Amino acid sequence: MSVAPHSAATAVASPSSLADRFQMVRQQSEALCRPLLPEDTVVQPTIDVSPPKWHLAHTTWFWETFLLREYLPGYEVYHPDYAFLFNSYYNSLGSRVNRADRGTLSRPPLRDVYAYRTYVDEHMARLLSLADTLPPTVGELVELGLQHEQQHQELLATDIKYILSTSPLAPAYLEPTLAPAPAILAPAAWLPVPGGMHRIGFEGEGFCFDNELAPHDTYVADFELQNRLVTNAEFLEFIEAGGYRDFRYWLGEGWDLVNSQGWEAPLYWTKQAGNWQRFSHHGLQPLNLAAPVTHISFYEADAYAQWRGCRLPSEQEWEIAARHFGATPTGGTFLESNLYDPQPLPTDADPTQCHQLLGDAWEWTYSAYHPYPGYQRAAGALGEYNGKFMINQLVLRGGSCATPESHIRITYRNFFHADKRWQFTGIRLAR
Amino acid sequence: MSVAPHSAATAVASPSSLADRFQMVRQQSEALCRPLLPEDTVVQPTIDVSPPKWHLAHTTWFWETFLLREYLPGYEVYHPDYAFLFNSYYNSLGSRVNRADRGTLSRPPLRDVYAYRTYVDEHMARLLSLADTLPPTVGELVELGLQHEQQHQELLATDIKYILSTSPLAPAYLEPTLAPAPAILAPAAWLPVPGGMHRIGFEGEGFCFDNELAPHDTYVADFELQNRLVTNAEFLEFIEAGGYRDFRYWLGEGWDLVNSQGWEAPLYWTKQAGNWQRFSHHGLQPLNLAAPVTHISFYEADAYAQWRGCRLPSEQEWEIAARHFGATPTGGTFLESNLYDPQPLPTDADPTQCHQLLGDAWEWTYSAYHPYPGYQRAAGALGEYNGKFMINQLVLRGGSCATPESHIRITYRNFFHADKRWQFTGIRLAR
Amino acid sequence: MSVAPHSAATAVASPSSLADRFQMVRQQSEALCRPLLPEDTVVQPTIDVSPPKWHLAHTTWFWETFLLREYLPGYEVYHPDYAFLFNSYYNSLGSRVNRADRGTLSRPPLRDVYAYRTYVDEHMARLLSLADTLPPTVGELVELGLQHEQQHQELLATDIKYILSTSPLAPAYLEPTLAPAPAILAPAAWLPVPGGMHRIGFEGEGFCFDNELAPHDTYVADFELQNRLVTNAEFLEFIEAGGYRDFRYWLGEGWDLVNSQGWEAPLYWTKQAGNWQRFSHHGLQPLNLAAPVTHISFYEADAYAQWRGCRLPSEQEWEIAARHFGATPTGGTFLESNLYDPQPLPTDADPTQCHQLLGDAWEWTYSAYHPYPGYQRAAGALGEYNGKFMINQLVLRGGSCATPESHIRITYRNFFHADKRWQFTGIRLAR
Amino acid sequence: MSVAPHSAATAVASPSSLADRFQMVRQQSEALCRPLLPEDTVVQPTIDVSPPKWHLAHTTWFWETFLLREYLPGYEVYHPDYAFLFNSYYNSLGSRVNRADRGTLSRPPLRDVYAYRTYVDEHMARLLSLADTLPPTVGELVELGLQHEQQHQELLATDIKYILSTSPLAPAYLEPTLAPAPAILAPAAWLPVPGGMHRIGFEGEGFCFDNELAPHDTYVADFELQNRLVTNAEFLEFIEAGGYRDFRYWLGEGWDLVNSQGWEAPLYWTKQAGNWQRFSHHGLQPLNLAAPVTHISFYEADAYAQWRGCRLPSEQEWEIAARHFGATPTGGTFLESNLYDPQPLPTDADPTQCHQLLGDAWEWTYSAYHPYPGYQRAAGALGEYNGKFMINQLVLRGGSCATPESHIRITYRNFFHADKRWQFTGIRLAR
Repeated sequence: MSVAPHSAATAVASPSSLADRFQMVRQQSEALCRPLLPEDTVVQPTIDVSPPKWHLAHTTWFWETFLLREYLPGYEVYHPDYAFLFNSYYNSLGSRVNRADRGTLSRPPLRDVYAYRTYVDEHMARLLSLADTLPPTVGELVELGLQHEQQHQELLATDIKYILSTSPLAPAYLEPTLAPAPAILAPAAWLPVPGGMHRIGFEGEGFCFDNELAPHDTYVADFELQNRLVTNAEFLEFIEAGGYRDFRYWLGEGWDLVNSQGWEAPLYWTKQAGNWQRFSHHGLQPLNLAAPVTHISFYEADAYAQWRGCRLPSEQEWEIAARHFGATPTGGTFLESNLYDPQPLPTDADPTQCHQLLGDAWEWTYSAYHPYPGYQRAAGALGEYNGKFMINQLVLRGGSCATPESHIRITYRNFFHADKRWQFTGIRLAR
Repeated sequence: MSVAPHSAATAVASPSSLADRFQMVRQQSEALCRPLLPEDTVVQPTIDVSPPKWHLAHTTWFWETFLLREYLPGYEVYHPDYAFLFNSYYNSLGSRVNRADRGTLSRPPLRDVYAYRTYVDEHMARLLSLADTLPPTVGELVELGLQHEQQHQELLATDIKYILSTSPLAPAYLEPTLAPAPAILAPAAWLPVPGGMHRIGFEGEGFCFDNELAPHDTYVADFELQNRLVTNAEFLEFIEAGGYRDFRYWLGEGWDLVNSQGWEAPLYWTKQAGNWQRFSHHGLQPLNLAAPVTHISFYEADAYAQWRGCRLPSEQEWEIAARHFGATPTGGTFLESNLYDPQPLPTDADPTQCHQLLGDAWEWTYSAYHPYPGYQRAAGALGEYNGKFMINQLVLRGGSCATPESHIRITYRNFFHADKRWQFTGIRLAR
Repeated sequence: MSVAPHSAATAVASPSSLADRFQMVRQQSEALCRPLLPEDTVVQPTIDVSPPKWHLAHTTWFWETFLLREYLPGYEVYHPDYAFLFNSYYNSLGSRVNRADRGTLSRPPLRDVYAYRTYVDEHMARLLSLADTLPPTVGELVELGLQHEQQHQELLATDIKYILSTSPLAPAYLEPTLAPAPAILAPAAWLPVPGGMHRIGFEGEGFCFDNELAPHDTYVADFELQNRLVTNAEFLEFIEAGGYRDFRYWLGEGWDLVNSQGWEAPLYWTKQAGNWQRFSHHGLQPLNLAAPVTHISFYEADAYAQWRGCRLPSEQEWEIAARHFGATPTGGTFLESNLYDPQPLPTDADPTQCHQLLGDAWEWTYSAYHPYPGYQRAAGALGEYNGKFMINQLVLRGGSCATPESHIRITYRNFFHADKRWQFTGIRLAR
Repeated sequence: MSVAPHSAATAVASPSSLADRFQMVRQQSEALCRPLLPEDTVVQPTIDVSPPKWHLAHTTWFWETFLLREYLPGYEVYHPDYAFLFNSYYNSLGSRVNRADRGTLSRPPLRDVYAYRTYVDEHMARLLSLADTLPPTVGELVELGLQHEQQHQELLATDIKYILSTSPLAPAYLEPTLAPAPAILAPAAWLPVPGGMHRIGFEGEGFCFDNELAPHDTYVADFELQNRLVTNAEFLEFIEAGGYRDFRYWLGEGWDLVNSQGWEAPLYWTKQAGNWQRFSHHGLQPLNLAAPVTHISFYEADAYAQWRGCRLPSEQEWEIAARHFGATPTGGTFLESNLYDPQPLPTDADPTQCHQLLGDAWEWTYSAYHPYPGYQRAAGALGEYNGKFMINQLVLRGGSCATPESHIRITYRNFFHADKRWQFTGIRLAR
């Protein structure tokens, strides 16, 4: 993904704090990889997942390409082949390793990638120290680079989970350090949201991606939203009612997947001796029935909603509701909540309020990821960041337990194909 | 596709005229196949295309399944295996031939399919003669069956074209009987459409598909639409400007197709000795530069619009504009305009008016084919007609030169995947 | 396949009889297609099977290409596109339709293919009438063309069977005209064959393919051969003993196929209400337990032999045995035995003699189809007839019930990949 | 592969020397992996190549399964999941990781695999110390395990080369320690080999694989063999003469590969600035024109021979010639010649003698890998070692520069599919 910072980005932080944030964000990426062995950082068990070593290098290449090569006088590229190896998808920037082949490359090894990071970080420190003399675009690009690296932190968390899950050894990324989440739960309740004309999209100061622009008016009818995410216990009812075996609840392409992939439960669920377990960053763990269900495709989210006689919200409804309920990250479950075991947590908060809108799980909406009215792709390579993906994907809202807290906004539009399950994706019911 | 006739379908024609329409529609399907040889009716050169023999049988199975078996006392099914052979996609109705295998089945031969049609038509005549004694649902289902058969007439026209096109002999379906379309052309012009709150979706009397329901309010900003469809000449400018070789205009998944499929022009275009030809129902013909471009994917439509600095309309905008300009089928180019050579025609009508909204070419919108607010799937097998396809497809509006005139409406929502090119699909620019 | 007639082909029949044989062979191809409907002649349900229409045209193209264009003065090619459409695999002769796409082409229709045959036959008659004035090569090429067309007659018989078998209607090619084969059977017996030095390969007068040359000495140890082919009853014992579920009898690549293809019995066998049926040219028929088993892959033949504690013969052993036992086509089951229902027949002949060596079923040998010592590919396009296939295939010997009687010889080397089942392939045990 | 030691294996070394050899062989496997980084030991860039980590573990599992579990009293399996993870292809021993997925598993990490090796080695030492009390089968199985591990050492050498070659960084496995091979060369010469009856296959004392049994008589005609392997210079002539672009030299399935894979030279050859380089264990190196060509498929070997007007030998001819010329490993190029850079070396030895029969490069024969007359699969899991692969592969003879010297014999039958190129495979011409 990429970003074209909007023109109102005047509030970009001052250089000194930028340098601090730069260091913090870069260190967080490495912290996520610290529990891994070199072997874990190489493999790509499925095309959606990238090797952690690749994430560490690709984010570094991003700084090198968009900042250092452009703005640091006399900068010398670390290695002439790294652009080929670590460009993700920018046609503007030349040919690159096929995405499916990322897991076949043992070299450069992890230690070289860390050396690359150090080299780039040192030069970035020099660049950031020059801030007074640099054009304002640099500040915007640094902000973009930080957001970009945060996106890859979420991918690191989810890709690591997937990589470890493929082993029959069910290895733990780290041993648990916290007590298990409590089995508390607020009852489900429907909360009305008044319809009418509403303004959608990002406005004001601070950072946003180009896909959140331009802000515009939209109309929705009155609707209701559930006060919290659907839980594992509720989803289990769907499974036990035969939901995965009844085509009537499913979109056609989803039903084909259920059959061809043999889906019978969310990703990472396995039944052992009659009990459902979930694979987690701590290996196999008992299912917390009160926690939000995650790791489901859009098809499963929609089939569940159909079975309940409800539906998924549109992205407009979701954003209007989030404003209506005054959603803030405060108290939510984000990557920082437990860096080494991101997982959504149950809530027993007041059922007359709306909870878990930000954090815990990305909420599938029944809205296509298409350009907003008035959307403009940025010029140059960064025009490929978001715009070229605006087809055949669905919008997800609200961030998850693997999203950095400072990365999320009410207007944030995440997007995935309907069949993807390896992110922390969940269900918010509407009607 | 399928239909759940809305509750307001009170205006369904009287039984006697239904019997007449039934006969007319059924005969039109056979008329479309008359120029074919038995060999032409068997093959399936690509999975999207069905053998004409299959269309003739499947539409017949539809009448047998939804009308005769349910409502004609004592009806005996024509052949016990035909449900397996000619069910298209109804899970409710049991297992069936894989779609990709339709072109491997030489049996039953064409003559047996015609005998099947005769048998079913005779029994339908008997059923329709009983109309007074039948529940009102029967009238609605007959209407649905007619609409269904009309949909397959359009597919017959486009599938026949594709089938014949795959032969290096470039055979003519029929020799031309009409003079070539004149090379007339109205200049392109932008027409303003006032935004605001508008009502969308089908209301009132007559037939509609369930996906046009429920009617609802929507808001759009002011916009402009072009007065006519994009022409072959205009699209040729895009080709000659290198549009197919510049990733910047393309969505990512479209760009992958351009490269993997080697797309360089619309489907059916070939360059011979420096001149563009198009394969048509009359074999290879010179390109009429003034005629609307057709046989393009959504990706090509969108890339063209990007290259022009414009965009495609949303389906809401399209429907609001069609109402605003008072679009009617009158004078449009439909299947009946030239049953044996459907093709879009140029227009030189008053450029201050909006033309070609109905007929000529299906207009790609940048709207996902998703349920309208309040949409309800019908119960039973007919619930599979439309609802289960509401993912990963785009809405097309307005009908084409291969659509029966009585089949189209302003509220009609057609849908295809973004890569499909074998329908008469074209471009209406918006901004 | 193609042939490079050996230098000793002095005994090629006189021109007049060649003309007669030409007419007879050509008519037999058409006779085989007479019971078909045009629809049956178009489809290609699997890549190994070609549409009968294609066979009729390809054999005609062969005469046109290798005889008429080369040797008939003033000959004009029937249609400029037919070389592209009906070349099978000759790189020397330019590009061609992909083999997998033969079943997507409805044109030219069957009637045009027959017109093509008539045109070529008339010109061939003229060429053959000039025989005195033509170089001797022409006689050899005519002989080759006849052998080539006979090979396609066998393919017509087997491809037609496959095509009709894919329909759930299980249509009969023709209604039966003969009484069912009697359920007679000679007991199995082992017959010794003395080893030592033996001469292998074609020598003497008459036609042979280049792959039967050069004749050469070979040594084999003493061995035993069974007096007749393995029967359906005997193969059924293997099935009922769980042979298809026990990897120990199978070659690794065969076991993978058993599992991925779900093989549980020979091709065309189906169990209905507890009784095994076989699909035949007369539709579904009861299995004749005394008849030789056919339609099995090499893997199944080998697994059966392993299970019995025996083995398959080498092609050298087979040819030595055939000479030893004085095998002749007389009384064998060939295509002419029942043109419209080729099937292997049981034998109850003297068990101290060796039977069914020629006709009934092609016998899988455990010999790779490799060049004989001293083998030379012919120059030019005909060098592609046999030589380029000499890898990854196995030799089969003896001809089948679908082989024309005049086409077979003791030295004849047929060849197929180990997984093929649609030919009349059977088992002769050795030890 | 596996072995069923023949009944004459009376000469198996005494227990004490067995223990020494055990230790030496086990250490050699680890020595081969010492220059690797953990990352290098995980990946599987193509299905034929296994991760080094897997080789280290699989060979260990072999000892555990066939020796320790069977014969060491009280032995406890190291980890219950390792049989699933490290079984290669033994159906007798249960389900296992799909071969194509070996490169997706980061766990167990390399250090755990080494711990597994230590555990097994310690228990093997205990078992070997009990030798006097053990049945003689144990000695035979130990010998088999050693041969098995040596086979995997060759695979380690070739798989490591392939793994490193896929990186655009062209990393060196180790920096070179020896001077480059000299550019010396004996002229090519034809050496006659008298035909007649010869005995083939393993006889006498010492170890052999079951596929070398039973020894038997065979007859070949007189033939000639070249005195040395085909060189890079000679193969370059074929390339420059357009050999890769002329279908006439190729088997059909080979020609398809040339086109679909874009083959233009042996594997690992690249042309940079007009000069051919080869990727080696030391990264990119200039081509030594006098060295034997390697890393070619059977198709390339055969096409080369066709182009030269020669042919490849049969495996019988090869073995007869090797006996005739008294081939011994002495002085040959084997894995021990340069553990860290296996490569075939040029020879300038007396051209009237035959050289390079053992070592340097596996020589493709035009003989199918089929059972010898009288071959018997062993009972139990070891019956899967060799027998089930006896289809669709070709025999290679003589060992290569990556084969341990003590592993090779004149009767040794190696086997690969005709398209494989990652082994050190070369060409010996015959006529």
